[in-house]
Amino acid sequence: MGRWEPDARERLVRAALDLFCEQGYENTSVAQIAERAGLTKSTYFRHFRDKREVLFGGQDQLLELLTSGIIGAPPSVGPLAAVEAALVAIAVTFTEERLANAPRRQAVIAGTDELRERDALKMAGFARAMKDALRQRGVSELDADVAAELGVLAVRRGFDRWLEDGGDFAEVARRALEEVRVAAAELQGAE
Amino acid sequence: MGRWEPDARERLVRAALDLFCEQGYENTSVAQIAERAGLTKSTYFRHFRDKREVLFGGQDQLLELLTSGIIGAPPSVGPLAAVEAALVAIAVTFTEERLANAPRRQAVIAGTDELRERDALKMAGFARAMKDALRQRGVSELDADVAAELGVLAVRRGFDRWLEDGGDFAEVARRALEEVRVAAAELQGAE
Repeated sequence: MGRWEPDARERLVRAALDLFCEQGYENTSVAQIAERAGLTKSTYFRHFRDKREVLFGGQDQLLELLTSGIIGAPPSVGPLAAVEAALVAIAVTFTEERLANAPRRQAVIAGTDELRERDALKMAGFARAMKDALRQRGVSELDADVAAELGVLAVRRGFDRWLEDGGDFAEVARRALEEVRVAAAELQGAE
Repeated sequence: MGRWEPDARERLVRAALDLFCEQGYENTSVAQIAERAGLTKSTYFRHFRDKREVLFGGQDQLLELLTSGIIGAPPSVGPLAAVEAALVAIAVTFTEERLANAPRRQAVIAGTDELRERDALKMAGFARAMKDALRQRGVSELDADVAAELGVLAVRRGFDRWLEDGGDFAEVARRALEEVRVAAAELQGAE
């Protein structure tokens, strides 16, 4: 009851995924999640502001890491190298726990329109954060927009690969960004 | 009452925007929108499946135009030229009526989380449709992903410019795609 629960957050996420997969997202209440985790509703609401945020927690931290990764990159490097620094910076959040939960989390999101929309806005938020941080480095509006979108594409592709193969997310995302960069450079326009 | 209303759809959209701006999206019901438009609720539901779709109507048509634009591009052209054909194909939907409604529509969406999420998923749907159509042309998975994301970026940037300056959307979007292509080609990686 309000006491310090060192692993409360992880327990709530696991309990929520168990229940969402057993009985559906719509049919599950916050009270049930808390009960399954052996915690109170008020503990739940200290960690997540509503039911769906148990699936999207940690977004603020990701945005901060993306931003500080780009702003903290050496002044001499170009936009895509700064984006690469951001992808490396977020790798700390791609833990074994996250990898273990990911297949069920993806399945729950894919099955519910409201969650797919929330997830799409999350990715758009990543692009916006990276673009804004690149602008702070003096990158032109156009280049910042393009580099940020390629960065989000690399996060998405790197994430898919990481789900399949695991490993160090920093390395996986770095390779995905390099692939995307080469493909973008080689795409030809209308001729 | 169920009779043929040739401009029912446009009247419903205008009535909805009037009410959303006057009293807020949350405070407006479908019944109020229909009443303001001088139509019935059942007419409303023949055009839009719920309240928010009055803001997102026409998406299926856009997806079809994007897809057929890419598939119908000459077999000899590359992925970005096929994407350009898709942007030209959707231009028919960027009408004067749409331009007139756009500032209020954008303001309503920006002010409501649920609508921003819906809008983000719409853009993700555009990317997915273009990627799938490019794959049907035999474009590699990576190139299709990159070209589709650059295409969505060009739609978004072209749309912003069209809102400011009006004109022929096909021409505006074509220029936006060319800008994005050149910027992507010139972005350097980590060095």
